[in-house]
Amino acid sequence: MTDRTLSIDIRKDLFGANEDAAELNAALFKKHGITALDIMGSVGTGKTQLIEALCEKLSKRYKILMIAGDLATTIDADRVSAHGVDTVQINTGTACHLDARMIRVALNDIDISKYQLVFIENVGNLICPAGYSLGVDKKIVVVSVTEGPYMVKKHPLTIKRSDMVVINKVDLAEAIGFDVESLIADVREVDATIPVISVSARTGDGIDQLIEAIEL
Amino acid sequence: MTDRTLSIDIRKDLFGANEDAAELNAALFKKHGITALDIMGSVGTGKTQLIEALCEKLSKRYKILMIAGDLATTIDADRVSAHGVDTVQINTGTACHLDARMIRVALNDIDISKYQLVFIENVGNLICPAGYSLGVDKKIVVVSVTEGPYMVKKHPLTIKRSDMVVINKVDLAEAIGFDVESLIADVREVDATIPVISVSARTGDGIDQLIEAIEL
Repeated sequence: MTDRTLSIDIRKDLFGANEDAAELNAALFKKHGITALDIMGSVGTGKTQLIEALCEKLSKRYKILMIAGDLATTIDADRVSAHGVDTVQINTGTACHLDARMIRVALNDIDISKYQLVFIENVGNLICPAGYSLGVDKKIVVVSVTEGPYMVKKHPLTIKRSDMVVINKVDLAEAIGFDVESLIADVREVDATIPVISVSARTGDGIDQLIEAIEL
Repeated sequence: MTDRTLSIDIRKDLFGANEDAAELNAALFKKHGITALDIMGSVGTGKTQLIEALCEKLSKRYKILMIAGDLATTIDADRVSAHGVDTVQINTGTACHLDARMIRVALNDIDISKYQLVFIENVGNLICPAGYSLGVDKKIVVVSVTEGPYMVKKHPLTIKRSDMVVINKVDLAEAIGFDVESLIADVREVDATIPVISVSARTGDGIDQLIEAIEL
């Protein structure tokens, strides 16, 4: 080693490259007047059903693109595509989150100027997706009452890095003895002002309030 | 660059170091005749409740240690500790899985020779923990009927890297219209021979069969 040796901070470099790509994505969305939303959350919290419920109400008003991230399969993209929405599936193989460069590659093959609204459904887990900017307007984290009472307490960073919390499956709360108010209090302890919207993607309850909160 | 330049495969190196630590853990467990189990699965699948149900039945026969991995909090360790079991909490900060070196560090402070059975509850997600050996006898993945019907299809690698699948919360299957047989068929498509045990950690159903399958 001499003092001419280049020292590379891999972590900074990886995150830096992602931030650069995220800025390019954000500029592209802005140029075309597109609202882009990153929908994060664990497996089975109902991210896809939530996007379906939103598309049901919004697809008459807006031309929508859905980008779905998963390790394998095209199940989620196929479900949303059945609502007449254009979809793109990104299969990450072993990666536990989407990153901004994957979104750039996906957008390369698309005439993005056609769309006004882009839903990005991230890979299903409550940890990794929060660490990576995609260049969206809002990062929305979906939690559900079937995940047990501790998912917010255990994942404060995910809440801190999100712009909105959606509590899904509230129609099941009473039957399984889940205390939604106590979960909201957990969120408030991490972030006093983040919007928290309770919905049931299955029954449609709360979807109008969510659309209002998204401020399209 | 000259041909004396050392090229480092970071990925191989990171995984290699983990494998080395895993082998040391495995040797330590073997030396003391300890059965060690890595319990993996998403947030809210009931990993902690499952360990509690197992401790309820096994703590009279075996001296048990539980090592709990989470980003933050000691909630899970505290719950299991209430059953008279010794517990250690590892808080990973932002890391989405335990690795073998974290287990080694945890074991440094413990007289491991006292124990016959070690439960390691991994960080809650269905993706990352499967990629890292901890040096255990069995990697057990817990899925639950509240995670929706696609969690196996979407995570074939996690199934491939596990030694046993536990389907939890089967007592809720009928009420929420979940088809357990179809989920088992999804597992069989990925791995024709992996043991699949259906349980309800809440009611205790299937826990005896699980204990038998673990072959203590």
